Amino acid sequence: MKNLHASALRFETDTLWVLDQHLLPQREEWLICDSVAAMVGMIQGLQIRGAPIIGIGAAVLVAHLLERGASRASLLEAVSILREARPTAVNLMYCMDRMAEALQQQDWQTAAVTCAEHLFEQDAVLCLAMARHGAALVTSGDRILTHCNAGSLATAGVGTAIGVITEAWRSQKDISVWVSETRPLLQGGRLTAWEMAQAGIPYHIICDNMAASLMQAGRVDKIFVGADRIVANGDFANKVGTYNLAVLAFHHQVPFYVVAPQTTVDLHCKTGAEIPIEQRASAEVTGVKGSFGEVNWSPPGAATYNPAFDVTPAALVTGWVLDSGVYNKSDIDNGVLEHADRSK
Amino acid sequence: MKNLHASALRFETDTLWVLDQHLLPQREEWLICDSVAAMVGMIQGLQIRGAPIIGIGAAVLVAHLLERGASRASLLEAVSILREARPTAVNLMYCMDRMAEALQQQDWQTAAVTCAEHLFEQDAVLCLAMARHGAALVTSGDRILTHCNAGSLATAGVGTAIGVITEAWRSQKDISVWVSETRPLLQGGRLTAWEMAQAGIPYHIICDNMAASLMQAGRVDKIFVGADRIVANGDFANKVGTYNLAVLAFHHQVPFYVVAPQTTVDLHCKTGAEIPIEQRASAEVTGVKGSFGEVNWSPPGAATYNPAFDVTPAALVTGWVLDSGVYNKSDIDNGVLEHADRSK
Repeated sequence: MKNLHASALRFETDTLWVLDQHLLPQREEWLICDSVAAMVGMIQGLQIRGAPIIGIGAAVLVAHLLERGASRASLLEAVSILREARPTAVNLMYCMDRMAEALQQQDWQTAAVTCAEHLFEQDAVLCLAMARHGAALVTSGDRILTHCNAGSLATAGVGTAIGVITEAWRSQKDISVWVSETRPLLQGGRLTAWEMAQAGIPYHIICDNMAASLMQAGRVDKIFVGADRIVANGDFANKVGTYNLAVLAFHHQVPFYVVAPQTTVDLHCKTGAEIPIEQRASAEVTGVKGSFGEVNWSPPGAATYNPAFDVTPAALVTGWVLDSGVYNKSDIDNGVLEHADRSK
Repeated sequence: MKNLHASALRFETDTLWVLDQHLLPQREEWLICDSVAAMVGMIQGLQIRGAPIIGIGAAVLVAHLLERGASRASLLEAVSILREARPTAVNLMYCMDRMAEALQQQDWQTAAVTCAEHLFEQDAVLCLAMARHGAALVTSGDRILTHCNAGSLATAGVGTAIGVITEAWRSQKDISVWVSETRPLLQGGRLTAWEMAQAGIPYHIICDNMAASLMQAGRVDKIFVGADRIVANGDFANKVGTYNLAVLAFHHQVPFYVVAPQTTVDLHCKTGAEIPIEQRASAEVTGVKGSFGEVNWSPPGAATYNPAFDVTPAALVTGWVLDSGVYNKSDIDNGVLEHADRSK
């Protein structure tokens, strides 16, 4: 397999490296990933996170195990296990399905390695296309709000929602960014803030519950978020809190865009109600934990409710920024996602 | 001054004790408060917090200093300094204005002590009245969402919004409570969760950004919140995140009630736009700090935006639960708050 480089995933000299995103921004540590169990653990522990990159990471691992001599049967089993590592983001399933197809071919070894390389390189290309389509929506002076982290850490390229922001910034648009911290795991406050600082883009971190008053004061011009799964009718799942922002944007008439590549489209689900939502551990809500330390502020034995994602109905979305272009609800109703979803 | 006892404030044997709410629920420590500087520090550090109790605490302190021999001039100065300790909650100003009036009377020593005692005892009476009015709105089976902490810790009585909840529970209504954690200072996850646990009421802590998906799923029946200031047109300020919940409630047609005593009404402000909103330190957003420990997860030098309160317009409020009864928007428009606000 050729060498592959992304912000949070690297394959070189026969070694697969994963940037431990759980430790960011306090520590930048790269972990070697050389087994299915290791990758599943990293995905579930959010050491590797972001819908596109977890699929690509899993695909590269499968190709890597192949080159290390794994049998076709064991690789197919690996694909099947990896496919189940997280339930909501469809990119993981998409990538594993592509790898399974490659492994079924006569020249399965070459096919699988080529497939993994392609998935990686394709994602970077898709990111750039989305970034350009989305950046065209941004005007100088825009105060953009984004949630969670849909950036270079989450993809093999410049990111989805954050790709739009960095592309607008690179094209000399004078923008600033509201970064919602994204409880419970703080991907906004840790990762997006870090990406904004790296890129030199002016930003402010807010707590998730502060976005409403900013919109009320007319201080949010546009919202861009990523997606873990876009379904046939345009509904989409993304990090919990996204639906909250969509309702607020609708109420305040702030344009609300979802940015995702074709690999995030799942036509098997007709509406968002069919998307499985991962429930996660209580300890994520009763406190925080990371390389910055670990604290728990809640009373002993506190019960919690901790869905990792929520579903935003298409009716609240101003535009879908895909790699093929920007679409509105009529476009969705006219079947544009059927062309986007090239896997089915 | 007579002995006075509340959940978070106590005057006995010539000593004023404040329960350090910054340390809850990990540690229950009572602090002696014997100076204006100490009280201002405790108010600004949220060791004493909650619109009603900070006003009452300041009043009791003034009476206490009087009994220790302070001059009328120094007490009037104390009142003036304490009045400015936090800008948003009007109860503090209300209580200080009552104390200033008492200090102007001929028999100012007796008048001021009596006034402080009255403010304390009156608040407990007002809480009970609100609790009963509000509990009548609750039906068995209700899943109630509340934000921040408007409970016995925040008042001299059973609380405002939480008073309604505990009163409904005491009257055998089978309820459960969604506790929004209330970033940045986690008054929900720390204090309301603790009060719910103490009362034995079933509850779940959620992150602030999860309320939307609960409402989408039809899992929130009613919302009760407190207030720091209700103005002439019915708009009100409360802990940041309240306006967010009001918009969500409106969108999902979930009844949304604000619960506050007459001492929270401020007719000097015609609309919510006139309420000053306190901005607080960046470190509250870049991490968390308490008796549970201190961590900072954001990149070094991260900029933040940290308003402590937001303003909910009257149009989003289903009902105002005051000590005198439950009112709707027409009642407000017909001047019911003018009777509630007995100070003006």
